[in-house]
Formats: sequence, C-alpha cells, structure tokens
Amino acid sequence: MSLSATPATDHGLVNLHFAQTLVDALAAAGVRDAVISPGSRSTPLALAFLRQPAINCTVAIDERCAAFFALGRAKASGRPVALLCTSGSAPANWYPAVIEAAQGGTPLLLLSADRPAELHGWGANQTIDQLRLFGSHVRASHALEAPQAGFASGWLQRLAARAVAESLAPQPGPVHLNLPFREPLLPAADPREWPQAAELPLPSPAAAFSEAFSADTYAPGWTCLPDPAAIAATAASLSGRRGVIVCGGGAFPPAFAEALLALAAALDCPLFAEPLSGLRFAALERSQLCVRQESFLRDSSFVASARPDWVMRCGDFPVTRQLQQWLSGCAAAEQIVIAPPGRWNDPQHVATRVLHGDALHIIAALTQAVNAPAAAAWRQSFVRAEAAAEALAAKLAAPDSAAALTDEADRLPGSDADFWEGVLIPALLARLPAGFRVFCGASMAIRDLDSFSGGGSKPLAFFANRGASGIDGNMSTAAGIAAAGPTLALVGDLTCTHDIGGLALARGRPLLVVVINNGGGGIFEYLPAAALPEFARGWLTPADADFAHMAATWGIGYQRAATRSAFAAALELGLAAIERGDPCLIEAVIDREHSVARHRAWWEQHQ
Amino acid sequence: MSLSATPATDHGLVNLHFAQTLVDALAAAGVRDAVISPGSRSTPLALAFLRQPAINCTVAIDERCAAFFALGRAKASGRPVALLCTSGSAPANWYPAVIEAAQGGTPLLLLSADRPAELHGWGANQTIDQLRLFGSHVRASHALEAPQAGFASGWLQRLAARAVAESLAPQPGPVHLNLPFREPLLPAADPREWPQAAELPLPSPAAAFSEAFSADTYAPGWTCLPDPAAIAATAASLSGRRGVIVCGGGAFPPAFAEALLALAAALDCPLFAEPLSGLRFAALERSQLCVRQESFLRDSSFVASARPDWVMRCGDFPVTRQLQQWLSGCAAAEQIVIAPPGRWNDPQHVATRVLHGDALHIIAALTQAVNAPAAAAWRQSFVRAEAAAEALAAKLAAPDSAAALTDEADRLPGSDADFWEGVLIPALLARLPAGFRVFCGASMAIRDLDSFSGGGSKPLAFFANRGASGIDGNMSTAAGIAAAGPTLALVGDLTCTHDIGGLALARGRPLLVVVINNGGGGIFEYLPAAALPEFARGWLTPADADFAHMAATWGIGYQRAATRSAFAAALELGLAAIERGDPCLIEAVIDREHSVARHRAWWEQHQ
Repeated sequence: MSLSATPATDHGLVNLHFAQTLVDALAAAGVRDAVISPGSRSTPLALAFLRQPAINCTVAIDERCAAFFALGRAKASGRPVALLCTSGSAPANWYPAVIEAAQGGTPLLLLSADRPAELHGWGANQTIDQLRLFGSHVRASHALEAPQAGFASGWLQRLAARAVAESLAPQPGPVHLNLPFREPLLPAADPREWPQAAELPLPSPAAAFSEAFSADTYAPGWTCLPDPAAIAATAASLSGRRGVIVCGGGAFPPAFAEALLALAAALDCPLFAEPLSGLRFAALERSQLCVRQESFLRDSSFVASARPDWVMRCGDFPVTRQLQQWLSGCAAAEQIVIAPPGRWNDPQHVATRVLHGDALHIIAALTQAVNAPAAAAWRQSFVRAEAAAEALAAKLAAPDSAAALTDEADRLPGSDADFWEGVLIPALLARLPAGFRVFCGASMAIRDLDSFSGGGSKPLAFFANRGASGIDGNMSTAAGIAAAGPTLALVGDLTCTHDIGGLALARGRPLLVVVINNGGGGIFEYLPAAALPEFARGWLTPADADFAHMAATWGIGYQRAATRSAFAAALELGLAAIERGDPCLIEAVIDREHSVARHRAWWEQHQ
Repeated sequence: MSLSATPATDHGLVNLHFAQTLVDALAAAGVRDAVISPGSRSTPLALAFLRQPAINCTVAIDERCAAFFALGRAKASGRPVALLCTSGSAPANWYPAVIEAAQGGTPLLLLSADRPAELHGWGANQTIDQLRLFGSHVRASHALEAPQAGFASGWLQRLAARAVAESLAPQPGPVHLNLPFREPLLPAADPREWPQAAELPLPSPAAAFSEAFSADTYAPGWTCLPDPAAIAATAASLSGRRGVIVCGGGAFPPAFAEALLALAAALDCPLFAEPLSGLRFAALERSQLCVRQESFLRDSSFVASARPDWVMRCGDFPVTRQLQQWLSGCAAAEQIVIAPPGRWNDPQHVATRVLHGDALHIIAALTQAVNAPAAAAWRQSFVRAEAAAEALAAKLAAPDSAAALTDEADRLPGSDADFWEGVLIPALLARLPAGFRVFCGASMAIRDLDSFSGGGSKPLAFFANRGASGIDGNMSTAAGIAAAGPTLALVGDLTCTHDIGGLALARGRPLLVVVINNGGGGIFEYLPAAALPEFARGWLTPADADFAHMAATWGIGYQRAATRSAFAAALELGLAAIERGDPCLIEAVIDREHSVARHRAWWEQHQ
C-alpha cells in the first residue's frame, strides 16, 4: 500500500499527521513536558508526544494524579506542561488540578481526546459532552473538529503557540484544547512502513505559513505595568511613615526577593515573610525580615504599641488566622495590595489601593520613587519582637537534659517523647541539604510551617497548593516537583491518604514524604466542630491506613518515628535514599492530644 | 446566653436551623443515604445529616471515592443519594462520578458547601467559582444564598423535594445545590445547650407552609408514555415477521424482564440479552433467550442465513464490537429503538424509529398490540446456534484429564495452568451464591463477561459504570453496591489501581474483589496501538503495584491465584470472608500472552 497515494482517504494517516503537527508546534512554543494517561481515542496524540524528542513524557494511569503531577512539574519548571487523556470521564478527573492551576496561576495545557461530532448524543460508548468541560476555570477553551485531509497546518501551529501564550499571560493558568478523532485512529499500514514526520507531505496551505512562522516571534511574553501616577501617589504615601510589608506565597521571579527587600530597606520597615514567599530560606540580607510574626502578633500590648500607618501586601492573602486578624485590625492604616492583573486579593475588603501589574516592576518603581524611610525606632521594635520569639522557638527544639529520659507516656517538654510539629519542623528543615524543594500540604501542615519554620540563609524552595487549598492531589503534585530534583513533601495523614494513588508517581524520583500522622484531620481540633459529640466521625475522620503497606504497594522505602531521636534516625535513612534518587516515606506518629496541648501552650506563651 | 432571644444575630444558629430544615426535607422526600467528606464550611449540613435518624451517613475522605460510592449506593437502592463536601476544589472531585451518573441515569444530590458572595473573587482561601461547576452534566443546578434569619422554610422544603424529584424524572441523574454559609458556622453556645430541631422556632412564614406540605404529594413520580399511534404502527411492522430483540444494560424495573420475554414470545423471536440487561441470571422462561450471541454471530454463514426483517433494541447500546457490527450489518432491517425521554441510543444512525418513554409501558403496549408470531423455524435457527456455542463454552471450563498435570509453563488447554478469563468467569459465576450483586469493571472485564458469563436460573444482579465507561471510581462504586449486601467486583489491574483509594470503603462491607491481573491494560492488546514499539510504555502501562500490600493498607484479606485450582481455593476463602461480612481481594494472575492466544483461538473456533 502506498501511503502518499491515499492521504485523503487514510484517516489514520491524517490523524497522525495532525497530531504530529500540533505536538511539534507545542514543542516549538516551549513545551518540554507532557503527562499522558493511557487510552484509545488519544492514540494519535500519545504517539506524537512519545515520538517528539524535545518533550519528556510521563505516563500516569489515574488522570487526577496525572494532572496534579503536571501541576507540580509546571510549578517547579515555570513552563506549561501538557496533559493528554482519552475521551469520556477521563478529563473530568483533571478538574481539581485544573481549578488549583487556575487559582494558583500555574500554566497547563489540557488536551482531551474526543469522539467526533456524529457520535455525540447518540448513546455511543465513552462519549460525553466535553465542550467547556472546565467551565469558568480555564483561561481559554478551544473546541477543534476531527482532523480532515488538507487541514490548515498554519492554523494548527498558531493555535499551539497561542494556547501556550494563553497559559502564560496575563495570568498563568490552564488552557483547554478538545480534540476529536475519527476512526481509524492510526494508519492502516504496518507501523514500520509509516512515513517519518519530516517525510509527510505538508497539507495545504501549510508550506507558506510554516516558513514565516516561529512560535517564539508569534507569541512572545508580555508584561503588565501599572499607571505611573499610581506609583507616584503610592510612594508619596509610604515615604517617611511607619509601614509593614507582608509577602505571601506566589510564583515570583528570581530577582523579586532582593527587590522587595530593597524597598523595605528604602522605607526602613519590617517585611513579614510567609513560608511560600520564598524569602525565609534564602541567601538574603535579613535585617528587614520577620518570620516570627505568627508568634509576636499574639502579644496584644506589642500590637497596640506598634500600629502601622500603612500595610503593603503582595502575593497570596496570608495563611494564618493570626496574621489575618492583625491585618483586619489595621483598619486605620492605608492598605495597599499589589496583585496580578485581574486579581483582587482582598478578602477582608480593607484595601485602600490595588496596584495591578507585574509585582517585580511595581516594587522596583516604588523603590525608585520613595524618598524617606520611617524613623529608625519603628523597625527596631519589630526586630526586638522577632528576636524574643526566636529565643522562645529555640527552646522548643532544644532537648531538656532533665526530661531526656522520660518515657513516651509522660512526654515532658524537651524530652525525647515530646514529639510534635513544633519540634519536628525545625529539626527537619535544619537537616535538609541546601537546594531542596519543600512541598507543604494543606490545613495544619502549612500553618505549622508558618509558625515553626524559622528562616536562614540556606536556600530552600517552598511550594504548596494554595490556589484552592485542597487536600486533594498533594502527593502527585510533590512527585511532579520531585521530577526537578530532591524534594520534601510535608503532609498530614489525611492529605497523604486522599492522594494514595499519587504515591505511585514517587517511584524513581527523589521524593522524601514526611507524613505527620496525628490520626485524622488535626486542623478541625481548632475549629468549633471539635466540641461536638459527632466530632471524631464527621470531622476528625482518621484514615486508619497502614502507611508501611501503603509505601510497600509501590516498593517505596518506609520509616516510622514517634520520638525525636527516632525521627532523626529515620531522616538520615530517608535522605540517604534521596541521594540515591529513590523515594522514602517517613511516618511521623504524633499524639494528637499532646500536640494540641503543646500548640495551646505555645500560643499562650506569646500572649 | 439565651438562644431564642438573638436568633437574628446568631448566624451559627441560623445556619444550623437552615441545614436541619433542608436535611429534614430531603429525608421526607425519600433520601435515606448521605456520603459526607470532612470539611469546615460544610459543618452545619454535616451535623444535620449526622443527626437525621432517617438518613444513613457514610464518611469518605476522598470526594471522588465518596461520589462513586454514592453512585453505587444509588444504583443498588434506586434512591437518590446525597453527597456533601466543603468548598473549593473538593466538589470538583465529584465530577467523574457526576458525569457517570448523568450518562448512566443514576440519581444523586450534590450538596456543595460554599463561601458567601462577599468572599468570592477576593483571594479568600478555599474559595472558587462553584456556580454551574458541573456544566451540562447535571439535570438541574440550584445556587442558594447564605442562610439569613427568617429564611423561607417553605421554599427550602419545596426545593429539597423538587431536587429529589429532578434527580428521578424524566431521566434519573445528578442535581446540584450550591450552599454558601457565613461564619460563625455553628451556634456560639455550648453544643449541649443547643435547642433540638423540634424546639427551634420556625422561621416565618414557615408554619403555614409546612402544615400543608408533604414531600410525597408535592412531587410524586411520573411516567412518560409513547404515542399510541406509534405503538400500533410498530406492532404492525413487527407482527409475523422475522425479528430480533436486543436488550442492553439499564436500570429496568422488576417486572421488565418478564414483560420483555412475553413480547419475544408473542413475536416468537430470539432475545439477545447482554450481561447488564438483568436477563442472563434470573428465574425466567429461557426459550426465547440468547446469551451466546457474541460467539455465534462470528459465524458468517449463520449470519447470512439468518437476516432479520427487524431489530428492536432497548437499554444501552451493545458492549461488544461483534454485536455492534452485526447491528450495522442489518442495514436492510427495520431498526426500532426504545429509549428514555431525551435519549437517542443510536450511535450507528441506523434506527428507523425511536420510541421514547417508559420501557416497561412500551413493551407491555406492544405485546398487547402484536397479532402474529414469526414462523417457528426463525427462532429455531437461533436456538441451534445458541446450543452449539454453549457446547463449545462448556469445553472451556471442563478440565482435560490428559492435560491436568501439565505445569504452568505449558498451559495446555484444559490444564490447571490454562487459567484465563474464559475459564475464570464461568468458574466464578458458578460458585457465587444466589442473590449476589456483580459489579463489572470497564474495558476487557465487561467484554469478557459478555463472552463467557453464560446464563442460568440462579438470580444475580449485574452492575457496571457504562454511562461514560471510565475506569475511574470502580472500586468505590462496588463498595457502594456492597452496602446493600454481598457483592463481587470483577475488575482489571489498572481499574483497581486507578481507584486504589476506593478500597478503603470496602472495609466492613461484604465486597469480594477479583482483580484480573494481566499486567496492564489488556484491552489495548486488541487495538491498533498494540503494533507500536511504544505500546508497553504508552498503552499497556502495567501498574506494577503489589496487590497484597494494597489490600493490607486497609486491613483487607488477600488471596493470590495463578491456576484454576488455586483460584477455586481462593474463592472459597473469599466467600467465607464475605459470609462474615468482611471484604476480600483475590489477585487472579493471568499470563497476558496466553490469554490473548486463547481469546484468539476461541474467536476462530466460531468463525
């Protein structure tokens, strides 16, 4: 059979050529990673991805895990990651990760294979309405037709470049391409006789288009700058007055941290850095930096004595209720929010000004425009508060020689059995090698990280799914981050169990999973439902899973630790595995009642 | 604190009262089951469900598992099942099950808690756009406001009854209620001091409404009847001519099977029953019934000699390609499709008439209206074909004494090591006690069941997720069915692994899971991609999971079997566990190459 003689009738060849054109154009536009879930209808695209040398393919059976893995991969690389799956309910499994990507600003390309129009609504197998499947949660949605002979490759190449661009600006996020294919899905000939992509005749009117077309020039990046008048007015109202900069999480560019500290220095104000700001563990000048605000803002007399004239926020709204309450208490202060275009990060509705645009440019412009710092005493009061909180924190981790021999049942503060988040987190971060990525789970893990991480000059990169703040997909996201290098995932037992299938993607990757197993949803202990007789059944909901078997299901190494010394030993073994490129799961068993008591005592200490 | 004195200002009390009114009305409208995933924003509704004695609550950490469990529960009970989760990406995890419910016609009530309007779009935590979250895949979507003091309880009660009714007719399916709550979520007082629901003052203008209102009378069921002229015309064209009735899967009422057989008897035509029709294993008159059509329709000379004048189909479009191809080959025949209102089950576009309405009523009306059977020889030719196929099938399962001692490497037909789906399925169904529910997984499992189940008078109830035919959520669905009584789940290794988290819901339920582990997506062996060098990596994708550890993660019993005798022994142990009310997982290890060879030999035998 001569393939070139029948291009118009061999649908399989048309499908393959169409898929190769699209995937080649995605590669040309900068896509370097694809996550594929197995299926039939997606066959032409799966093959095109697997045969595109510029794109690294990961295969994941569960589409939900695939999507969260892609999310993690995109977070770590800053590049859009392509997802591919078959028709039917398969792409619906992407939805939670799509929502997280939309909320958190992570670029994803959602390529759902579909059945052609004539099969829709006629009771055909694995056929559902996939148009606008992700509703308002995508930046753009492109519904294609099934490939036909002579399709316009110039259009298809530009669509690929456009989809990549739409996933990156003005706000990174997910873009959906729905791609129907008509059977036969592959060419009729033996695969060894198929023409290579380069040998395929280009469908008209492709040749003219593709010579002039380059994905780089067609859709270059762009930057959104604020109104200069707004910058000048803001700088005037910041200069010489007592202010606080609050930096939450965000996908900030490399130069951002230094730029923000330069602004803080020019204004001589404290800079409250949350864990996801990227400022806590980095080689930076630290005289402006606070990382203990969750502690020292509990001291109401300090708060009353240090009321700011203004607060400037960038990145996500703060994680902890303590900082949130302090912000809402600054009602008399001018509150300035720096937000990406289209975002209004002001859930308390207290902002007096929102500056939309690229955060780095806004901060650099403000630094140039401000003309006077606050009086030196202003920042000094925060430096003293930070130092006091730091001293209290140092006591938490230090062993108490008198209590050191106490057995588990006693758990005296400072004893080996006094093992809870306030001890675990500093010990863990102190031991991590420089350059580690840290993915932090939802609920209590991120709040405890905020309270107990401290900070230092050793660079660590922090990640979390704080767009929608779900406990879904966290293991898969961490595995996707670990594809970039050694990664710690710090998660609760419910978070790990929720994404038990995602552990499969840790295989062969340097992912150290530390599961804080406190027997259920620890965060609910601090919410009103804790007082209800139905609390354990309806809210705490301990997973009651055996984590040793969970790890062994995928051949992943496992350690268990219920004391400080056991945890230190487990951590050494875990890090040795990571150095070999293998994953390891450490189950840190924490007594929930002890942990709650120690949290409360810790909070009271600061009041 | 006096609660009754401040009802307008204690938002927590308003929230709780609102939630109780809604949940009580759902119970009054017939809801008996709720599946709750833990969360904070959903607290008032979770508490109302847990305190409503008429509603049985199941708690599931993973919302995707929760939704598929609810799907299975609704399939087994025929009643709508309520789902509840918190705000954010949580309800998005329901999406695959929502789509399956919409496609498969299963009633679900989707209650998503939400944050109030003032938090939407302002960067607040766990806040996403939940309006129309499920797009075109719900029967109805109700967006509520956060409860306010003095809310109209008459409206809320009617909304509950209406949502239940919308989930049941004209086509059962999912209905979404989005329910924002404003903090504080619970009353300020100590829970022991809260008023009981009956003691709460009814918000105006509730009293008058609720006396006159009963969910039963407000939204009674309804039935859709076809046009009598269409019945008469159809009966005339069926009478005295050579026809075949094909019955696919469907949620048919109890009297349906006998009614359909009565019509077949009146027309003296064969009735091709698919596994999900409910006709294969039932105490029924079997002289009209065929269950081996997947085999005998492979005989082209038989097919040529037995061309029907008409084909009548009810239920889903057939599962196997063999029957699908036979249908498309009946181009000269009149093809009548009986479909629920709004459904057009005709993916081949060959139907000459579609009768919309209640299948039971249509069939009863046709039986009354037909006035002559076909000539007796017509049905006899199918009886002979069925008997011949049955005789071949009997040989598959029978041990060959000469080969019985052969070791595994040889796997001669009839030997103990000749262990594949064609042997496993008849052995399994033969051993199941009467009344068992059988949930069948996607892809090869359902096709093999079609080929090898046979039939008999022992009643078994068959289920599958054939709406969207995904491999997602199958373990959770099976667990939901097992909540009604002893259940077998027959699934492939990828299907089981895809829903590994769903196994948690098997705990404490009589669910026997038989995993056909043939090292990956066996169905792809029969598709074009099998010829590709990338086949194993991109399509077969073996899960490489350890099923013993997978079961042990949840404390579930485990057996492994790679031969006929080992499987028989494992089955006895598994059924003993089921009798105690415990789950058990049997890993049936099948050599893929042997299975493919035996499938092909089996098919060739019939040609």
